[in-house]
Amino acid sequence: MNPAKNKLLIAALGGVNEIGKNMYMIQYGEDIVVIDCGSKFPDESLPGIDLIVPDISYLLENQEHVKALIVTHGHEDHIGGIPYFLKQLNIPVYGARLTIELIKMKLKEHGLLRDAQLHIIDVNSTVSTGAIQATFFTTIHSIPDCLGVCFQTPEGNVVHTGDFKFDMSPVKGPFPDLHRMAEIGMKGVKILLSESTNAERPGFTPTERNVGEQILEAFVKAEKQVFISTFASNVNRVQQIIDAAMETGRKLVLLGRSMVNVVTISKELGYLDFPDDLLISPDETERYPSEKIAVLCTGSQGEPMAALSRLASSKHPYIEILPGDTVIIAAGAIPGNERNLGQVINNLCVLGARVIYKSGSAAGMHVSGHGSQEELKLMLTLMKPEYLIPVHGEARMLYQHKQLAESVGIPPENVLIINNGDTVQVESGGVSIGSKIPAGNSLVDGLMIGDIGNIVLRDRRHLSSDGMLIIVTTLSKSEGHMVASPEVISRGFVFVKDSEELMGQIQDIVNSTMTELSESQTTQWSLIKQTLKDHVGKFIYQQTKRRPMILPIIIEI
Amino acid sequence: MNPAKNKLLIAALGGVNEIGKNMYMIQYGEDIVVIDCGSKFPDESLPGIDLIVPDISYLLENQEHVKALIVTHGHEDHIGGIPYFLKQLNIPVYGARLTIELIKMKLKEHGLLRDAQLHIIDVNSTVSTGAIQATFFTTIHSIPDCLGVCFQTPEGNVVHTGDFKFDMSPVKGPFPDLHRMAEIGMKGVKILLSESTNAERPGFTPTERNVGEQILEAFVKAEKQVFISTFASNVNRVQQIIDAAMETGRKLVLLGRSMVNVVTISKELGYLDFPDDLLISPDETERYPSEKIAVLCTGSQGEPMAALSRLASSKHPYIEILPGDTVIIAAGAIPGNERNLGQVINNLCVLGARVIYKSGSAAGMHVSGHGSQEELKLMLTLMKPEYLIPVHGEARMLYQHKQLAESVGIPPENVLIINNGDTVQVESGGVSIGSKIPAGNSLVDGLMIGDIGNIVLRDRRHLSSDGMLIIVTTLSKSEGHMVASPEVISRGFVFVKDSEELMGQIQDIVNSTMTELSESQTTQWSLIKQTLKDHVGKFIYQQTKRRPMILPIIIEI
Repeated sequence: MNPAKNKLLIAALGGVNEIGKNMYMIQYGEDIVVIDCGSKFPDESLPGIDLIVPDISYLLENQEHVKALIVTHGHEDHIGGIPYFLKQLNIPVYGARLTIELIKMKLKEHGLLRDAQLHIIDVNSTVSTGAIQATFFTTIHSIPDCLGVCFQTPEGNVVHTGDFKFDMSPVKGPFPDLHRMAEIGMKGVKILLSESTNAERPGFTPTERNVGEQILEAFVKAEKQVFISTFASNVNRVQQIIDAAMETGRKLVLLGRSMVNVVTISKELGYLDFPDDLLISPDETERYPSEKIAVLCTGSQGEPMAALSRLASSKHPYIEILPGDTVIIAAGAIPGNERNLGQVINNLCVLGARVIYKSGSAAGMHVSGHGSQEELKLMLTLMKPEYLIPVHGEARMLYQHKQLAESVGIPPENVLIINNGDTVQVESGGVSIGSKIPAGNSLVDGLMIGDIGNIVLRDRRHLSSDGMLIIVTTLSKSEGHMVASPEVISRGFVFVKDSEELMGQIQDIVNSTMTELSESQTTQWSLIKQTLKDHVGKFIYQQTKRRPMILPIIIEI
Repeated sequence: MNPAKNKLLIAALGGVNEIGKNMYMIQYGEDIVVIDCGSKFPDESLPGIDLIVPDISYLLENQEHVKALIVTHGHEDHIGGIPYFLKQLNIPVYGARLTIELIKMKLKEHGLLRDAQLHIIDVNSTVSTGAIQATFFTTIHSIPDCLGVCFQTPEGNVVHTGDFKFDMSPVKGPFPDLHRMAEIGMKGVKILLSESTNAERPGFTPTERNVGEQILEAFVKAEKQVFISTFASNVNRVQQIIDAAMETGRKLVLLGRSMVNVVTISKELGYLDFPDDLLISPDETERYPSEKIAVLCTGSQGEPMAALSRLASSKHPYIEILPGDTVIIAAGAIPGNERNLGQVINNLCVLGARVIYKSGSAAGMHVSGHGSQEELKLMLTLMKPEYLIPVHGEARMLYQHKQLAESVGIPPENVLIINNGDTVQVESGGVSIGSKIPAGNSLVDGLMIGDIGNIVLRDRRHLSSDGMLIIVTTLSKSEGHMVASPEVISRGFVFVKDSEELMGQIQDIVNSTMTELSESQTTQWSLIKQTLKDHVGKFIYQQTKRRPMILPIIIEI
């Protein structure tokens, strides 16, 4: 199966109609280049699943043609799936310095680092793979070292923006490279894949510098210990927090594994700048007065196992949040995390802390890393693409992005809203929707990857909502009658000690059903099982309005 | 147990440190009056639970003293627990007209209407129960007929605000009764219980009229069908929608049971005003051109079974959303519903509808029913309470409310932040925290109410995350050896057909474990079960990093 002979093929293997697990591919003839390989977390409809990564079966089918994985930046929704990908297809990986360092950390955990083919590129690199040549341009986002990619192909240029905002006054260089973007636009862009995260937000996303000013102000005002939580990967924000600590004469404690790791790597690479004696370890805090201590920690999303959550529950061995301390949440809640974060803030309030937090875009302590509507329009205006494929967003964001494109003069029929697995093909200049390729969710559950199976997930949902009832009956192999009286066992249904009467009634129904069946001399196991399920299920529903899973087991002796 | 002899006792049985299931009580000597009896929905930590209502065991213990239930308004978090309460303790219920009508609907569903003692009151009523006299004042909220309550007791006045905002230009009367509130404040308020929902929001909540203007504008601009979804109980917003339909010459279809019910009742009671020929049934829509049709429906929270969700999935038999139609979500997403609502909006975009929606407070199509910081301060200023108990909110809202109280001159030590079950006692003018009374979550699961049991819930969580493995072994009663080979059955763990090798290995481990045990001539069932669990569990964890529930069952023949 190789649908791309003499034509250009573009597809999303993840990232459209969802936030998370970004993965795109571009193919010309026999050359396939992959962009990003992210992961996302499951919602409650997938009980017990640890992680969702893209389905890569199309790439596995065409593995001899897959030449490179280009990674735009080091966020989980762009790199989280890489270990699972490389385990199956060990191709060369290209990314900027910090991106590659973060991928290394991940591969190390999976024991895959030794065999990986990692290549550090910068904005002036070219990655050539047969018919496709990739060049790069600098974008600004909430992590350093972000790249947009321009693919030169025989059918014209295809640009993938990566994640971006136009922060014209970034905390630390580089600046967004408008000139190179303009140059690319001048040369002509056949198809632009542009991110859509904030397509619903009017205006222009504020600069990251604003956050630094707010943080400094809070540090100056704080009378006792300061605790501040943010995303470890937002290295520029971390620098601003470090600056505020230094300016107010505080020592800094780092809490949380990813915070320690990212700060260490970023300092080594020169992305962070601070004297070595700034940092102290948690057990050294007792040597300093409270107004000389700042704690930078993970857990800004209220993750139950992260540092902030443990501090809020007074579970840290050395560090305690006391009345009068200041706690700053320098992050917005990612949709789905509101409840956990709210609970952490509740706990912090009960401890007597002054908590500085705010959900939503009005927050002075957080700005988005994604460009708002005016910035998406700026990108479209610079790139002047013939066609736009809005990516990196749920349907409503893609449709808003389409409206923005219309407002800057792109004809609506040239905006292609696609699903994961749809292909866009370009042949002799003509652009059309091609045949579908496999794409979807690959579920990671413990060590197992792939299709965990609808039946398994349906069973888990069923078990979690009403529990189960197991009925074990024994039948004599020779004579077909019961050898011992049936046993009824319940888990997650009712607490047996509190429901002896109900359980007794269920036992009676099982017994009478088995007697009936035995009189009718039924030996068909499926009939016995179905009759037990029907009789017991009907009774339980009448009595309790619940529908536990009923599992008859027949043991033949 | 009657801790209130010659003293005044105030407690929350629900509603503090949470949003939902409001229930407060006030007791003097042998007289207990209950305020509200709400319900809330469980989060994912309570799998299979349908509803949470307050634990009323204190009231049941003192049932001869419980004189009245006063209901401030007809929202679920104030009336949803009433059927479960009255089933156990059938006391007189007092509420304003619409409140009582909504309670009636609820009691009818539970078959409790005939025996209920329901009393319609208005703002000029007095409810006297021995030592406690209740009078009322008008407040404005997102449902008509809201009352605040002033309890006169031998220890002074206790005021409960109910839910409120100060909408000085309400869509339809009455106006917020500032004069009566001022009068109550003049006479002296010992303790104020005031709601805290929007204590985190600066400023003043906009008037409901603003929403009407936005809705009318959207109706005027719409070129084809208009669909609009809001809370059925927001009768004034429904009136504004009706007005917009009439002004633009559209017929109105009502979709969703609660919308039909509430509109019908509200029209009967005179809260809604429209000509009978405005409404048409869904199957009549084909007789009208699309620009003459408006559909008012439930489902503004993205509830999967509600009308809007079904329309968005093209599942309605008569009505279809077509490209160019306008869909208005005239509601904000209640925390926890963001994902469901987002999905509905995604589906509507895919259908080609113009969707007007906005999350958060900036929404022109929604204003909160709860007062913001300046309104909470206005209430405090009017009431001039000696003590404040912030209620109706999570901890962070209660603490914010405390700061607001300080800013209007209430000493911090006079703001009592309590938990559900804490009592505040007033004796000879002195106010203190008294002993605790039982309070907590009563879980409704099908027909069963009460303590569903931590073990049952823990089992459900365990089952939902990794599924289960059942091992059935048969032992001879006389000789203690195995009669048949053990059976291994899995549900929610792995799909057996895809995992034959793993299941085979597990079967081998079970067999060898049973052989070992049989050689050691063990007859202790608990030891047999534990050994099976240990051996199999360890193997499965090594192979899969999962921990399914392992359930050994021994059948004695």
